[in-house]
Amino acid sequence: MIYIGVMGHGVVGSGTVEILHKNKDTISKRTGRELVVKKILDIQDFDVSYRELFTKDASSILEDEDISIIVEAIGGIDPAYEYTVKALKSGKHVVTSNKELVAQHGSELLNLAKENNVNYLFEASVGGGIPIIRPLRQCLAANKVSEIYGILNGTTNYILTRMKRAGLGFDEALKEAQIKGYAEADPTADVKGHDAGRKIAILSSIAFGKSVPYAKIYTEGIDKIDHIDILYANKLKRSIKLIARAKRHEDGVFAMVTPVLVDNYSPMADVENVFNAIMVKGDAIGDVMFYGQGAGKLPTASAVVGDIIDVVKHLNATSVGVSGSSSAMTVLPINNFSSRRLIRLSGNNLDIVNKYANEVFKNSTIIDLDNAQAMGEIAILTDTLTEGEVDSALKLLKKKVGAIQILGSMRVE
Amino acid sequence: MIYIGVMGHGVVGSGTVEILHKNKDTISKRTGRELVVKKILDIQDFDVSYRELFTKDASSILEDEDISIIVEAIGGIDPAYEYTVKALKSGKHVVTSNKELVAQHGSELLNLAKENNVNYLFEASVGGGIPIIRPLRQCLAANKVSEIYGILNGTTNYILTRMKRAGLGFDEALKEAQIKGYAEADPTADVKGHDAGRKIAILSSIAFGKSVPYAKIYTEGIDKIDHIDILYANKLKRSIKLIARAKRHEDGVFAMVTPVLVDNYSPMADVENVFNAIMVKGDAIGDVMFYGQGAGKLPTASAVVGDIIDVVKHLNATSVGVSGSSSAMTVLPINNFSSRRLIRLSGNNLDIVNKYANEVFKNSTIIDLDNAQAMGEIAILTDTLTEGEVDSALKLLKKKVGAIQILGSMRVE
Repeated sequence: MIYIGVMGHGVVGSGTVEILHKNKDTISKRTGRELVVKKILDIQDFDVSYRELFTKDASSILEDEDISIIVEAIGGIDPAYEYTVKALKSGKHVVTSNKELVAQHGSELLNLAKENNVNYLFEASVGGGIPIIRPLRQCLAANKVSEIYGILNGTTNYILTRMKRAGLGFDEALKEAQIKGYAEADPTADVKGHDAGRKIAILSSIAFGKSVPYAKIYTEGIDKIDHIDILYANKLKRSIKLIARAKRHEDGVFAMVTPVLVDNYSPMADVENVFNAIMVKGDAIGDVMFYGQGAGKLPTASAVVGDIIDVVKHLNATSVGVSGSSSAMTVLPINNFSSRRLIRLSGNNLDIVNKYANEVFKNSTIIDLDNAQAMGEIAILTDTLTEGEVDSALKLLKKKVGAIQILGSMRVE
Repeated sequence: MIYIGVMGHGVVGSGTVEILHKNKDTISKRTGRELVVKKILDIQDFDVSYRELFTKDASSILEDEDISIIVEAIGGIDPAYEYTVKALKSGKHVVTSNKELVAQHGSELLNLAKENNVNYLFEASVGGGIPIIRPLRQCLAANKVSEIYGILNGTTNYILTRMKRAGLGFDEALKEAQIKGYAEADPTADVKGHDAGRKIAILSSIAFGKSVPYAKIYTEGIDKIDHIDILYANKLKRSIKLIARAKRHEDGVFAMVTPVLVDNYSPMADVENVFNAIMVKGDAIGDVMFYGQGAGKLPTASAVVGDIIDVVKHLNATSVGVSGSSSAMTVLPINNFSSRRLIRLSGNNLDIVNKYANEVFKNSTIIDLDNAQAMGEIAILTDTLTEGEVDSALKLLKKKVGAIQILGSMRVE
């Protein structure tokens, strides 16, 4: 009998209890052991059939010697960090879906787990149920990974899908996502790209073997995307996606989260609604892509229970055998990062912009929507330029043309 | 120092030696050990810098007590089976890409490995470098898997892509694939679907926890697909893909490899050239897809080396902790399997076929290519029917219409 303590009975915690119960037979067949949830920590009361398992006292779980595995599904840093440290120090394995905590203290907690000969596993922290952490660590371990990129946030992908497919504005699409339970009441972390930033920090730390500090990742959200952007995307046969990316360079890593106009023929363009997709480029493997539901109760809980099963199979070992890195990777300033750009401009002098655009942006194209909704603006589709070159060129253009306003600027692939 | 013996210096064996050398630093950082190839078995001589490692005597590897890990990259059943048994019995871990052997003797060899407290790992046997075996076993272990399907053979996918994109006939496309090294001189195992059949047998055995006997899987190849089929596919906004599938039912499993007309909007349609994609449906996770290069020297060797790294991290344990199943799963006769069908017919009585088609096939549509190349034939796109119902309906149609010839029949999704 393996006893489990669940901390937090929200979406992921309750999903974990549900799967452990529902797929009991499959799980005990796979592990050769019976897994039992002994206690559940939550400050709220729940009207569920296993009411007697609840406690409001964390120490009753942390100090229970029967419990060998703790599911930390509280989320956030405080008190999750404190509980995790206590659990690892007292020799309990910890499985979590907490991306904030892993992004901020992952290396430290991995090292603490190793010192105490237990596991700290967090497959559920990125991509919901999509297997990505373990494949990166194990299956692709023979590769030097050069780049990871993808759609890591289901909420924003849902909003962008609805803006494209149903012609909704950003606010309408966000409201719809909230009603459907895909976006939280306070959607900031999702729509500003912070959630995707935490996830790419976690993935790149594993892939590159050094910790990539989340706080240094350049992050742009989708809250400034409007329906005119969608019209431009359609005209260019592209789709707007919030892409998280970490690309290894000699001196460090380019790490960023930004909206990107991706080609409709690329696999990323087909990833719609709340689905996520993660592409990994390795020197031996080439491109590998992982696709699935990046969030949701059962998919995420499925990853938590997958980790639990792994722990049970290696109860007396650190199954993943990784340690956190003590050294951090240099996150490079993005002004040296190159891409094409679509720059929307308005002003009274659009004819003059038209005239000078190609002088200032070599090999650029003027995109005119020819649509009543986009009157009084044009867009320049540039050649591949660094972020720094774009800034300089725009300054030059302003000098030549006079008053123009930059309505938006998106990277194009 | 961990000593490795490599058996077979073909594509996968030589790729393994190459990656172990090239990514030496990354690998020793990840494992904390130095990995050294001590001996290589091959009957041929190779003009390589590590010539001194070669031996023509298998026992010099199998009886070398320094060697703790053997890479079996010989392929086929004989002598790979014999060597693998000997290696496992003498306490050596075995890592392989040999799908024939795993499909035929996988359960037995897994049990033998477990008895001897070593690992038998075969991530490279399915999907080249795409992580699929380990994710199925570990990350998705909390799920009841209901279905696995996908494009598991790169050779046939390349041929179908070239037929669609370049308008080549089957023979031309096959020849091109052979010239590019994507198809073997004897392409039978690929084009007849046997290779994909072995792979779906391996995957479904793992996912369903009982061995699915390869020999009982219904297999149709792509060698009868012609350019008219491609025209129909285009007209229906679909693409022809060789789909391997295992679908769990109450009484057993439907397991088959057949060409399928997949919707151009489905993710499978975008999988082109030598790429593979594998979709797994689980009760908690929903749909997850894995995509990447399904074959090739370095991708496949990358999976072999990933397994080696896993072994090194758990030298004194059976890392995956799975046992082979002693019981086999019932493979159901496919005549109860349902799908839509596109049935191509020719004859002198096409007008009459037109008239009776809807009487015989309820809710069917006549597809007329209206193309000189497809003169004298039409096709019926049926509603969802079992294989048995299709056969009966065709018999009835023949009775009503007289002499008609069935030119082809493909499943449609």
